[in-house]
Amino acid sequence: MKIAENTINRLIVYKKELNRLATDGLSNVYSHKLAHLSGFPSHLVRRDLMNVGYNGSPAHGYNVTELEKCIADFLCTPESVRVILVGVGNLGRAILDYCQQQNPKISIVAAFDKDKNKVNKVYHSIYTFHIDSVKNYIKENNIDVAIITVPAAEAQEIASALVESGIKGIVNFTPVRLQVPAEVYIENLDMMLGLEKVVYFVNGD
Amino acid sequence: MKIAENTINRLIVYKKELNRLATDGLSNVYSHKLAHLSGFPSHLVRRDLMNVGYNGSPAHGYNVTELEKCIADFLCTPESVRVILVGVGNLGRAILDYCQQQNPKISIVAAFDKDKNKVNKVYHSIYTFHIDSVKNYIKENNIDVAIITVPAAEAQEIASALVESGIKGIVNFTPVRLQVPAEVYIENLDMMLGLEKVVYFVNGD
Repeated sequence: MKIAENTINRLIVYKKELNRLATDGLSNVYSHKLAHLSGFPSHLVRRDLMNVGYNGSPAHGYNVTELEKCIADFLCTPESVRVILVGVGNLGRAILDYCQQQNPKISIVAAFDKDKNKVNKVYHSIYTFHIDSVKNYIKENNIDVAIITVPAAEAQEIASALVESGIKGIVNFTPVRLQVPAEVYIENLDMMLGLEKVVYFVNGD
Repeated sequence: MKIAENTINRLIVYKKELNRLATDGLSNVYSHKLAHLSGFPSHLVRRDLMNVGYNGSPAHGYNVTELEKCIADFLCTPESVRVILVGVGNLGRAILDYCQQQNPKISIVAAFDKDKNKVNKVYHSIYTFHIDSVKNYIKENNIDVAIITVPAAEAQEIASALVESGIKGIVNFTPVRLQVPAEVYIENLDMMLGLEKVVYFVNGD
């Protein structure tokens, strides 16, 4: 079954909220509460959860840990995914730091930069290699996913090199619209879009 | 007319792509080309642009600069919006740097932190004040929008203080789901969601 991208987005958000509820010690949650926490309408939440094959009880709602596991299984997050990061500037280091504390199944295993002052250093427990070695690293370690946090002017060249070496998915933090083959999945995270949206909604009121 | 949030998102993306095309020296663009660049279906692009009141010509498509201006007018981006940033860690500094180079109408005018080593310093041309002065600053300067890049544990306390001082819109870069009054607009930018999505789509194939 081909699942729509928006559904995947929502499932990832539910999973995150369920994980938070479990941490807070809650064992059950109603769909309307999960809807409120995740910011999506209740009917959509119920439909999505029916799609992953989990049924709550009208009396007690959903079991938090069971549902979280169910979504994780549905998304078939593998045991562990190894990711690399290219560009160890402020943003790159912020992401290295942030990722350590989050999803334990996704780990950044290496960072790359062209700056000699950063190469061979360890930031937030991640070793930084010279960018020249990235192609070999990807091939030898079967890396599929890369995060790009280089300056805009270098983004396309880096992306092309990564794809050539076998990268199949890229999280792109640069404002550049990368040109890659259609089979490569790109997620653009443009930090300014969020700011422009907030400005619009605050001024539009 | 109340415009759906998703439409606003798309208009902001079109505006960005049009600006890029103008920079590249292109004067006209067809809807299917703009659709391709922005990643949305052509029929949606045409409908959105009809909504902002701009009609292209079948022979030449849309005039790039006229359309960009038309969208900007529609979004009624005011002359200049002043924004503050709280939390001058790696991510905060990355955003200070990034924002300087982007939308000239939105400017970060001040940064705040509780760390004495960061206070009274200038990062990417922005002065950092002590967090204790943030409430006065917001009131005296009529600031509506804030970016939060503090550690997760401090996010809610900061958000509450900002809202109390008059902040109406927040770009939240922490993984915390902030509790604020309904009239405050929050845009959550969770950097891990994008990574989880890419991992899913790469592994799902």
